[in-house]
This record gives sequence, C-alpha cells and structure tokens, in this order.
Amino acid sequence: MAKKNAFYAQSGGVTAVINASACGVIETARKHKDKIGKVYAGRNGIIGALTEDLIDTTKESDEAIAALRYTPSGAFGSCRYKLKSLEANKREYERLIEVFKAHNIGYFFYNGGGDSADTCFKVSQLSEAMGYPIQAIHVPKTVDNDLPITDCCPGFGSVAKYIAVSTLEASYDVRSMAKTSTKVFVLEVMGRHAGWIAAAGGLVEDQGIPVVILFPEVEFNQEAFLAKVDANVKKHGFCTVVVSEGCHYPDGRFLAEQGTRDAFGHAQLGGAAPVVANMIKDALGHKFHWAVADYLQRAARHVASKTDVKQAYQLGKAAVELALKGHNSVMPTVDRVSDAPYKYKIGMAPLAKVANVEKMMPKDFITKDGFGITAKCKRYLTPLIQGEDYPPYADGLPTYVTLKNVAVAKKLKEFKV
Amino acid sequence: MAKKNAFYAQSGGVTAVINASACGVIETARKHKDKIGKVYAGRNGIIGALTEDLIDTTKESDEAIAALRYTPSGAFGSCRYKLKSLEANKREYERLIEVFKAHNIGYFFYNGGGDSADTCFKVSQLSEAMGYPIQAIHVPKTVDNDLPITDCCPGFGSVAKYIAVSTLEASYDVRSMAKTSTKVFVLEVMGRHAGWIAAAGGLVEDQGIPVVILFPEVEFNQEAFLAKVDANVKKHGFCTVVVSEGCHYPDGRFLAEQGTRDAFGHAQLGGAAPVVANMIKDALGHKFHWAVADYLQRAARHVASKTDVKQAYQLGKAAVELALKGHNSVMPTVDRVSDAPYKYKIGMAPLAKVANVEKMMPKDFITKDGFGITAKCKRYLTPLIQGEDYPPYADGLPTYVTLKNVAVAKKLKEFKV
Repeated sequence: MAKKNAFYAQSGGVTAVINASACGVIETARKHKDKIGKVYAGRNGIIGALTEDLIDTTKESDEAIAALRYTPSGAFGSCRYKLKSLEANKREYERLIEVFKAHNIGYFFYNGGGDSADTCFKVSQLSEAMGYPIQAIHVPKTVDNDLPITDCCPGFGSVAKYIAVSTLEASYDVRSMAKTSTKVFVLEVMGRHAGWIAAAGGLVEDQGIPVVILFPEVEFNQEAFLAKVDANVKKHGFCTVVVSEGCHYPDGRFLAEQGTRDAFGHAQLGGAAPVVANMIKDALGHKFHWAVADYLQRAARHVASKTDVKQAYQLGKAAVELALKGHNSVMPTVDRVSDAPYKYKIGMAPLAKVANVEKMMPKDFITKDGFGITAKCKRYLTPLIQGEDYPPYADGLPTYVTLKNVAVAKKLKEFKV
Repeated sequence: MAKKNAFYAQSGGVTAVINASACGVIETARKHKDKIGKVYAGRNGIIGALTEDLIDTTKESDEAIAALRYTPSGAFGSCRYKLKSLEANKREYERLIEVFKAHNIGYFFYNGGGDSADTCFKVSQLSEAMGYPIQAIHVPKTVDNDLPITDCCPGFGSVAKYIAVSTLEASYDVRSMAKTSTKVFVLEVMGRHAGWIAAAGGLVEDQGIPVVILFPEVEFNQEAFLAKVDANVKKHGFCTVVVSEGCHYPDGRFLAEQGTRDAFGHAQLGGAAPVVANMIKDALGHKFHWAVADYLQRAARHVASKTDVKQAYQLGKAAVELALKGHNSVMPTVDRVSDAPYKYKIGMAPLAKVANVEKMMPKDFITKDGFGITAKCKRYLTPLIQGEDYPPYADGLPTYVTLKNVAVAKKLKEFKV
C-alpha cells in the first residue's frame, strides 16, 4: 500500500510550547518521508478536519518549522469544539474518517488535553469499525497539568515558571513598598478545577516570601484566609496571595461571582483577584494591588521552561515514532525516574486509560491549613520549571513565526459544523 | 575638611531597574573612597532619612552590590511620602539636614520621579539657607517616563518591553483561538496621566497584530472605539486592546469607575480592562479575555530591556561623577543623538527645570483617530526596548539578591513622621 499522509491538529487553549510539539511531529515526519507522506494540519483544530480545511505543511520551509519550537500559541489555529459521543454525533466522526480517506491520511496526531484525548480515542475506535485504518496518537498538552498517567503535561512547566517568576518579582516589589503603601499583592492565575498553576506560586517561599495560595481543591474559608494574610503582614510587613480562578465557596460559588451589578443593572464579570483584594481591604484595612495574568501566563514563551520546551518537542517526536512502530490509540507520556537529579523517560499510555480522567493535586501536595504547598509538592514542581529557553529577538521583540498556512485543495462536498 | 559620606534613597513606585541605578551609585562611590566616605541608604526611602533609619551599605559585599544590577524592586525599601512645600513643612526639611549633619553626609542622591526631583531641589535650596552644604543630585526613575529634559527615564524601557512582548504573545494566543472562542483580548497597563506605557503595545503592529490603544491623553469615545474594534475583528478575525489605567471619559471619570456595587452595597473597585471587555461583549457580542498586568509589568526584570538596564546604571554612576565634579541641584539625563543606529550621551539638567514638570506623549506620537501610535513614536520607542539582559537563574528561578540592610547607630532624638 502506498504510504499514508498524516493529519495534525491543535486543540483547546493554546500554550507557550504546543508549537514545539508541532515542530517535533513535523520534523520527525520529514525525517521519515519513506513512510509518511505529507503532514496536513487542521486549520483551527479539528474544525479544519470536519470542514476539509487542511493546511499543507510541506509548503513551510525547514526554518519556519524549526521556528515553531520557540513560537507560542497555536500556529495552525486551535478551537474549542468538543465532539459529542459517538452515539450523539456519529455523523461528525464519520466525516472525519471521510476526510482522512479522501486525503489518504493514515496517521492522526491530536495535540490537546482531556477532551481531545477522548476524541482521539473515539476516532481510533470508529476507524476500526468503519474499516478505514487510522493510527490515532494523542500528543498531550495542557497548562492545567490534569492529564492522568503522564507525570506532567507540556505547557504546564512554562506557565508554572511564569507564575513563580512573576510571584517572586511582584513580591519583591510589594516588599519594597510595604512601609507606607501596598502591603498585599494578589495575583489571579488560571486553573478552574486543578490548582497546579496556583501551586507554582508557592515555589518562592524558599526565598523568604510569605505566600498564601487559594486552591480550587480547597473550599474557601474567609476567616482562616484573612487571619493568615494578617499574620503574614504582621510578621513580614507584607503578603502575597496567589488565587486560582477556580477558588470557590463551600456552596460551589466561585469567588469571582459576587453578584455585582453595573450602573445599568448588568451582572458584572470580574476576576477573583479584585474580590480577594477588596475583602482584605475591608476586613484588615491593608492597601493592596492586584493583577490578573490571564493569557499572559500561558503565552509567555519569553520565560518558558527549558524542561517544558524539551518535553513538548520530545512528545511530538515520540508520537510519530510510536505511529511508525504501529501503535494506535495511545499517548506518549513523561515517566519520572527521579526528582533530583531530575530524570525521566518517554513512555506510552493507552488512550482508553487517559480519556475522561482528570488528575487533581494530590492531598499531600497541599499543606494542612490549605494555603500552601508541601515539600513533596516542591520536589515535584521544581524540575518542571528548570532551565531557560529564550526565543531569538530582533529590535527588542521575539521573532516568533507566522506560517503561510497554505490550504490543500478540497475534494469533498461542504460540511456544516 | 574630612571627606563626606553619601546618602542614597529610593522613592515612589519601584521598577525593574532602580536597583541598577543603586548599583551604579554605590559601585562608583566605592571607586572614589578618597573622596566619598560611606554610602548610607534610607530604609524605605526618605522616611529612613527623617527617622534616622540609615542602612550602612559598606556591610554589603561587592558581589551583593553587583547583584543589584539584575534585581528588580527597591533593595532598601521605597516609600510614597511626598514632602510638602518648604513653607508648609520646614520642620521635615530641617530634620533632613540635621540627620545629614549628624552622619557627616555631604552628598544626597535621590532616585525617583517628579516628586522626588522636587524634594531634591528643595533640599539643595535649604542646605544653602541653613549653611550646611549638601550636594543634591537626582537620579531619574519612573516607569511613567514623564520626566522632562531627559529623553527617557530608567524603568520605562523595561516596562515598555514587557508590555510589547506580552501584547505580542497574548495576541498570538487570541489569534489562535478566534475561530471558535476568544476574539478580543484586553490588556490593562499602568499610566494614570501619560500613555507612554500603553504606547508600547503599538510596537507589535508591524508583526501584523491589530491593536487598539486607549490613552489617558485621549478622551474616551465609546462609539468610535467599538467601531474600531469591530472593524479589526471583521478584517483580522481578532483584536487586541491595550488600555491605560488612566483612560477616562470626557467628564474626567475613569473607565474603571463604573459605580458598581457588590452584594453588600460597597463600591466595587475594578480595573479598566474588565469594563472595556464587557462593553465590547455587550455591544458586539465578541467573546473576550482580559488581563491586568499591574506590578507584574514594572517588576518584570526577567524580560528587562538591556538599553534600560545600561542607562539606569549609567545614570547612577553619572550622579556620583557629577557630585565629584562639584555639581549640585542637578539630574543626569539621557540625551538622544540618533534613533537608528541608536546613540545617546549622558547629559545634565538643573533640578529647577525638572521639578514639577510632567512630560506627556507629544500629539504627533498618537495617530489621528486616537487609537494608535505613529511611525515617529515607533522610532522613539524602538531603541528603548532593545537588547535582553537576563538575570542569572538557579533551580528555575532568578537569583535576585536580598541585602542584609544593617542599620547605622542612631545619634539623634526620635522624629515622628
């Protein structure tokens, strides 16, 4: 049988290193032209496959593909589009297979988090049922670090480094100002369900910074929280608070949902940080500043973790190598061997065990009072933020690449998503 | 007469490079031990002088002082404490002179913005009147970039670089997501009166990013703003907005003041970014994300501008050299010679011309529609963000220094501030 083409797509929220995985996939495929034809990428993720909007990556130079290694965001576009169950929407899964068949695609590399692992798993099941063989390999990616089996997820190490560095720098700032001005600095970070990103703020404690962390895994206790902040201000003169966007009250209500209304009576969408900051001001009277990092944290390729960039590339590379070895319905993983010195191997997990499983922070990673991280957690996190991997700069700005993203000619009828 | 000691203090909001100026002052003073005795630093700025809480910098090793060059924040503590006019509070100015006299201080190096230039000027006037000679030299520092005469202010170049890099990265992110998710990203930046920091967001336009800037110098026109954002989304699929905290309506009301109330009826303090984001959502229906950089921007030494770090050091060094040449009541300045290649000289300005003058963005730096920066502005800004000057790292985090800050024994009676 003639050699098959490959399809690669990016899914869900993008990261500082998802393109490094794309680089790993494409560069490795280019090294095996005897076995893999062209690599097509989905324009805007899986939607590109459904609408037959494929990008021909062979139109990109080796230099442009190499530049993906240091370019944040999703170079081919990503999307938030969850395919429903096979029963509920068989039509979409069948369309994927049709598109793959029309373009002689035999390899499906899907780069995303839990939802995309599930989609990838279903595609492999359906391709079997439909008699058109597709090797479906999931490439892990999520700043939330919540995929099972793999020790960590590409994207997380860099956002953790960004949060740790930013927490350190802002804490030095507030320490300088605390005598007459700001005494409490509140930083809001991502993490709707899992507190991995917030945990990274705790890494600066060893540098003498008092940090109070509000995890989504711990129900918010306002009294205990205020007492902890006040004790820090009394002892150190200042306090830093890292609040996860997913921090919530015992009744499940997010801190950010304060039922505030604007002048027109509209519900006001705010962040958790200003809510926490105002709470401290009201109860304790301390002057505050707050920041919401939002996209800045997950896009911050300028301060990416070298470990993370390396692993993102390795997992993209491993995905292709697993496919070439004949594997299907699997995900390459990071298997930690030791903390210090940090050693790991690239392993493999069956998608059946990855799909729909969410990995939360282990209980013994959070201190008993619920506001900090344990030594065990620090041992886990520290290797993941190690090393710097700076992008090249010109005229003061990183020279990130924007690809040409040339479309492949369509062969099928239009399909509405 | 015996050689005099020097006093150095940091004033107002700290920056990523104010310690580089401190490094320039102290290292240069250490090279002239024949003429300058000890360098004392004010603990928490000028309050340290008023309360006779002086730090003996001779207790710090050369290595620790050298590390100031790459450590953000104010290593000796800063303060927001504006001395009133000589008439209104002669008592405080006289106290400063008393403390200087008690500790044989003949050089006053004050590192700050407009207010501290004014204080520095008044100290030089009073020392003359009181017959105790003090050479008062102001070392410029402000992320707001609003001091007159000097072409730019240390601290600004690094915050401008942070904002430009962050705007670029977050814009790449939203561009990836725009097909099915976020179409507008709003970043709030510092700048209550002057839009220099917001202007830096415009530097990414040449990389194909549509950016709408809201300056404090331009009265907010909601209709024109929404039309501009919508046109960008229609043309590019996405839009980035950089909003200055000082952006306001024609009646002077800040965008951030929306008269919102929480569940208890308290006025809710929010940022301008969520207000702008919700305005776009309400009028145009576009999904948004927003970030508030706050302290992260001015503390971001990890992505400092090499030009800025160098100038901060040079101006600290120049301050000492000017003092040694007998100057008084002056401020060293950056005098631009050419844009490209960027050349400048270190000059000098009399404090009488610096104090109480605020430099806003020139009109020809802002585009006619009020939402962007001109080519002239880009020529001005580009050199200021050039070059990278990374701090050293260990275990994934920058190894910023925390000084010992040993107190000098007091000689005077207590003084209440």
